[in-house]
Amino acid sequence: MSRASAGPEIEKLIQLLARLPGLGPRSARRAALHLIKKRAQLLEPLTQAMRMALERVTVCSTCGNIDTANPCAICTDPRRDPSVIIVVEDVADLWALERAAVMNARYHVLGGVLSALDGVGPEDLNIAGLADRVATKQAEEAKVKEILLALSGTIEGQTTAHYVSDMLEGSGVTVSRLAHGVPVGGELDYLDEGTLAQAVKARTPV
Amino acid sequence: MSRASAGPEIEKLIQLLARLPGLGPRSARRAALHLIKKRAQLLEPLTQAMRMALERVTVCSTCGNIDTANPCAICTDPRRDPSVIIVVEDVADLWALERAAVMNARYHVLGGVLSALDGVGPEDLNIAGLADRVATKQAEEAKVKEILLALSGTIEGQTTAHYVSDMLEGSGVTVSRLAHGVPVGGELDYLDEGTLAQAVKARTPV
Repeated sequence: MSRASAGPEIEKLIQLLARLPGLGPRSARRAALHLIKKRAQLLEPLTQAMRMALERVTVCSTCGNIDTANPCAICTDPRRDPSVIIVVEDVADLWALERAAVMNARYHVLGGVLSALDGVGPEDLNIAGLADRVATKQAEEAKVKEILLALSGTIEGQTTAHYVSDMLEGSGVTVSRLAHGVPVGGELDYLDEGTLAQAVKARTPV
Repeated sequence: MSRASAGPEIEKLIQLLARLPGLGPRSARRAALHLIKKRAQLLEPLTQAMRMALERVTVCSTCGNIDTANPCAICTDPRRDPSVIIVVEDVADLWALERAAVMNARYHVLGGVLSALDGVGPEDLNIAGLADRVATKQAEEAKVKEILLALSGTIEGQTTAHYVSDMLEGSGVTVSRLAHGVPVGGELDYLDEGTLAQAVKARTPV
């Protein structure tokens, strides 16, 4: 009974928009209509920004970050401490840490976490690249002193953290991980027992 | 404290994506990252589809629908009944009625509803165009017999319906409106009293 409501070109646009995370078939239709209505204010600049991303955005061959430069702006920033490398699963995690702006260090993006279920092994992740960065004292990269494993608290994240930390044993670098505890602004009775237990064990004097 | 996490070009892409309905700042970041990762499968075809929309999509000068042709595919479809025009507020409503596929008629998109609060008067809507379509018997448009006002049940929608129906008085066309009642699959105790009252008054024999 149902038929394509818009022409084939607009239907194609809707179908592609629906594949963005956060948009479903219904909101993709709204988004397409919004784009067509806001031609000069949104459709034109967004098409332009996407064309730019298509032409210029690459993956940094040092750390795995995405940027329009390779090596990326973080890897070449002279104000960053080159002796600390924060290991993250994904570029989204790198962005989250940058927004927190808590450490002026460099990064290493693994591109995923180890998962037996999904068939992700060490060779599928950018782990060898991390070992290289720690081992070789490149002219532009000073000796690495600390590796901070900023990985998720999931089983896969923690498995990956163990694997990386085992691999780095004997390399002379300090390996650290993020603290577990109560989220800032979080309510106690919504927290799981594991987090609460960790927060109690790691309690700090006031 | 917070700093731009990605480069300026990627930040620009995120900001523009965040202006799509249904995406906020956080989901726009996820969407941008997804686009960059799915370069060949999503970023390329979506950029292409948006460029096409930019170059080819126009507003139909007869009915106000959007399409790559003018007059649009609905206005030129010979299998459609030209004697019935369904009046809608927006192209999204036209799409919704097309998906319901209940009537093989033509449309007229007003581009909004009358609203004293938002300062929308009859001259801001495509109402004159509707009067023209009813009055002139164009060679390609047979005489209009019925105008179905498919407008929202809101105060603004009903005000607009009254205005259009007053304007068409004496033109010889039948003016109808959508039935009020219980939505299909809707539960009675979630319905407002106004809808229930209308549904009782307009009860039909089983």
